[in-house]
Amino acid sequence: MKYGARNAVRGEVKSVKKGDIMSLVKFDVAPCEMASVLTTESLDEMDLKIGDKVSLVVKAVNVLPVKE
Amino acid sequence: MKYGARNAVRGEVKSVKKGDIMSLVKFDVAPCEMASVLTTESLDEMDLKIGDKVSLVVKAVNVLPVKE
Amino acid sequence: MKYGARNAVRGEVKSVKKGDIMSLVKFDVAPCEMASVLTTESLDEMDLKIGDKVSLVVKAVNVLPVKE
Amino acid sequence: MKYGARNAVRGEVKSVKKGDIMSLVKFDVAPCEMASVLTTESLDEMDLKIGDKVSLVVKAVNVLPVKE
Amino acid sequence: MKYGARNAVRGEVKSVKKGDIMSLVKFDVAPCEMASVLTTESLDEMDLKIGDKVSLVVKAVNVLPVKE
Amino acid sequence: MKYGARNAVRGEVKSVKKGDIMSLVKFDVAPCEMASVLTTESLDEMDLKIGDKVSLVVKAVNVLPVKE
Repeated sequence: MKYGARNAVRGEVKSVKKGDIMSLVKFDVAPCEMASVLTTESLDEMDLKIGDKVSLVVKAVNVLPVKE
Repeated sequence: MKYGARNAVRGEVKSVKKGDIMSLVKFDVAPCEMASVLTTESLDEMDLKIGDKVSLVVKAVNVLPVKE
Repeated sequence: MKYGARNAVRGEVKSVKKGDIMSLVKFDVAPCEMASVLTTESLDEMDLKIGDKVSLVVKAVNVLPVKE
Repeated sequence: MKYGARNAVRGEVKSVKKGDIMSLVKFDVAPCEMASVLTTESLDEMDLKIGDKVSLVVKAVNVLPVKE
Repeated sequence: MKYGARNAVRGEVKSVKKGDIMSLVKFDVAPCEMASVLTTESLDEMDLKIGDKVSLVVKAVNVLPVKE
Repeated sequence: MKYGARNAVRGEVKSVKKGDIMSLVKFDVAPCEMASVLTTESLDEMDLKIGDKVSLVVKAVNVLPVKE
């Protein structure tokens, strides 16, 4: 599997919050956590459950650096 | 500082590759690495240099889960 | 505060519409208005209320020019 | 013309910086300025020139509020 | 109409699923199908109904190639 | 392979235009064409060549409907 994206980490589903159209899924990506919002349809089709292992892919253009 | 985004981690600039319009910056986000593409103008304005500490912000809608 | 984005304006919260997973916030950015969709979790964490002043950040890759 | 996006303003091309693959265009959106990055191919196809009037469309999910 | 985007196809509204804040619309783009998530406000303003013909615009930076 | 995205089609690489930081790849997605912009690093890592078959994944939030 090769993604046309600079960021891809492995994570484990930690929580699923299902909404009417969109859903929010949290992942353990030791030592931190990541969150994804996807359609509830995609969630159901992926059949994501707590403990499932997935890849989390983010294109580099969607990463915003901020210097505080 | 509070971001309207579910993902925000601290990282340290590891490398900078400057292009004509866009630039690619890599960050150490122990234990892994993240990459951001931004305009070279933004890069210059932020004056990002190796070793600088920044926040890396990603909206949850831009995180794609993939189940292999 | 320096953002790795070409667009950053100051705005004032004008309305908040809270949904199950996502929320819609409108901002006064005189002389016009801008809207943001974020997770309700982020909204709660930011504790956004009418009248609050925020920065609205948009990466240039997310701006679509259309010539009618 | 109706866009499936909450943000659409009129702007006038102020500068064009052409790159190999991507280009950066700045727009006057009185009283401020906006920037867009698009492919140089799209730029050429649109035939964008200084003074041209365009609509600048941004989906609300791509607007990040930050509370400093 | 010229878009600053490399992907623009014509589609016909096939189904509309309205949510509190976001809505999911499916389009027939023979021989396949596309889906868009937009705010319910934008949906109402566009007055999208089954059978309506629209353009579906996607910036090339938002297309992720995956080699399986 | 299951993607947390509503849009995923199969395409075949038709052309590759390599830039300093970003590259533009065109795909045959009969009966039409799609384009993706990714980092040149990702392109090299994927080793994309004309004729290669890939999946093209687009999250529904990145699809903009326009009614002309």
